[in-house]
Amino acid sequence: MKNKQLILVKRPKGLPEPDTWEYKTEAVVPLQEGQMLVEQQFVSLDPAMRGWMNETRSYIPPIKIGEVMRAGTVGKVVETKGTTRYNKDDYLVGWGGVQQYVITNGGGYQKVAPELADLTTYLGVLGLTGLTAYFGILEVAALKKGEVVLVSGAAGAVGSVVGQIAKIKGCKVIGIAGGKNKCDYLKNELGFDAAIDYKNESIRKELKRNCPEGIDVYFDNVGGETLDHALANLRINARIVICGAISQYNSQQVVGPKNYLSLLVNRASMKGMVVFDYESQYDQARIQMSKWMKEGKLKTKEDVYDGIDNFYEVFLKLFSGDKLGKLVLKINK
Amino acid sequence: MKNKQLILVKRPKGLPEPDTWEYKTEAVVPLQEGQMLVEQQFVSLDPAMRGWMNETRSYIPPIKIGEVMRAGTVGKVVETKGTTRYNKDDYLVGWGGVQQYVITNGGGYQKVAPELADLTTYLGVLGLTGLTAYFGILEVAALKKGEVVLVSGAAGAVGSVVGQIAKIKGCKVIGIAGGKNKCDYLKNELGFDAAIDYKNESIRKELKRNCPEGIDVYFDNVGGETLDHALANLRINARIVICGAISQYNSQQVVGPKNYLSLLVNRASMKGMVVFDYESQYDQARIQMSKWMKEGKLKTKEDVYDGIDNFYEVFLKLFSGDKLGKLVLKINK
Repeated sequence: MKNKQLILVKRPKGLPEPDTWEYKTEAVVPLQEGQMLVEQQFVSLDPAMRGWMNETRSYIPPIKIGEVMRAGTVGKVVETKGTTRYNKDDYLVGWGGVQQYVITNGGGYQKVAPELADLTTYLGVLGLTGLTAYFGILEVAALKKGEVVLVSGAAGAVGSVVGQIAKIKGCKVIGIAGGKNKCDYLKNELGFDAAIDYKNESIRKELKRNCPEGIDVYFDNVGGETLDHALANLRINARIVICGAISQYNSQQVVGPKNYLSLLVNRASMKGMVVFDYESQYDQARIQMSKWMKEGKLKTKEDVYDGIDNFYEVFLKLFSGDKLGKLVLKINK
Repeated sequence: MKNKQLILVKRPKGLPEPDTWEYKTEAVVPLQEGQMLVEQQFVSLDPAMRGWMNETRSYIPPIKIGEVMRAGTVGKVVETKGTTRYNKDDYLVGWGGVQQYVITNGGGYQKVAPELADLTTYLGVLGLTGLTAYFGILEVAALKKGEVVLVSGAAGAVGSVVGQIAKIKGCKVIGIAGGKNKCDYLKNELGFDAAIDYKNESIRKELKRNCPEGIDVYFDNVGGETLDHALANLRINARIVICGAISQYNSQQVVGPKNYLSLLVNRASMKGMVVFDYESQYDQARIQMSKWMKEGKLKTKEDVYDGIDNFYEVFLKLFSGDKLGKLVLKINK
């Protein structure tokens, strides 16, 4: 049995080139006592992966050169040896990385129920992106009913859930996304009050038109100019959640928000978050979000591509904006 | 009786030129029923004055062209007519502006006790700068014992009080100031644990040397590069208080903090403040700070210059860094 792996072979500068990774195929070694062989089915593609490739220490250590590319995965236990934490045919989510098979004692993996939700959902709305949205908007922003919420990357895996939760909580929600398709999706399918197409519209003018009263909460997935537009339109006591900055991840020189003194004038705050800090509350969040999904209040969309060999092409879609919802790569049938 | 006034005659770009203001002298008109004539003695000079001169609305409206230059003042009631809120010979603090006399019904003025503290103290540590320091470090930063505190503009009216309160609360305190004199003052007179002379030392290197463990609270009075150095050295759950940005007030293009993503990695926050929000708690803060002053734990320094005609020259000291402590202009004897 062969395991095809994607190995990080050099640290990229800017947008990664194809030679950032190499494929390696090796035989799957026999299991030891207590180990399980997981056949990985889906790999999660997330903007955060770009940060993990840098040498600088972030909230988790960098991926080492020569290591399998780190990624969230969902897969099935196909073989066990001795007493193991999970059983044959269990489905597990964890940090399996971009490879077809993983041998593990189960540490860091959680069992999921394929009969309750599609497997890809456990990488999306019930996975780290959905949980990031949930804790970001409810805990970090401490959202209150009736507030005006702006979210960027609004059609993405995190942003789309942020906006829908804000609607569930009785807020006015404006999304920023690239292209008419995405904006139509936000308004017509997800119930956003307004959507701004940053590729074809002026964010400044559309903010003035759609929320002349200003913004109470800005959930930032993109950074750059968009963050400055949000800062220029804050209400008193506004909160900005810094969840990501996809416009900056491939820049060698990050652009800082020149309007940051709006925080002073408006007694506003800008706060960073990392979802791992909420691990003890994941289960209750998943229960709540599953309930909303059943009630039809929380819709999800996964953009699933096929084949480990297509990793690079699909990875680029994270930064080109050429996707809708959660980006997933199918690794095994 | 003549009243000499300083009038704002044009909106400056960058550092104000002398022709930004004009002097005007007019006769003091007779009092009406309920009015008092206040002979102003001291005018407070604060970096915030630069912001009020811009046309854009901030946390208070801009000073209008043709109006007396707005400033905090302390003065003495020299004449009253009928039933008045305060009595002859009372000392009042308020927003008298840069002029020798003010006629008022007392709205917005508070009575102070010259026998308890020097009059200039009511513009400094017991005035808005001291109160800004008090609420900024204790309420906005929610300082905890044993934390590492960095403060910029540390020898200034706000920064020097921030650092001393942090010492009183059992913290490690590092100040950033310009020049050896100021740094010696911070270490030897105010009890700071360390002081970084940004004019002659590398902030980056000195931060690594003096607080290799990182920063829990950064109290920012200056913005610019210094804010970026602080961001690069945050600990988990750090708080940045945005109180001012004196390095940027005369820039036509504010430089944003390019290291702001450190907020994300460190789950840190950056929060703006305006002291006026704490008005209901001013009295209790003044009582606490007077107590610390009596105990010798809170020292103050005012840099007092003489003569309304010298306003421009003294105003420039706000931005040249050529001062120690609170900057005050004596207007009448």
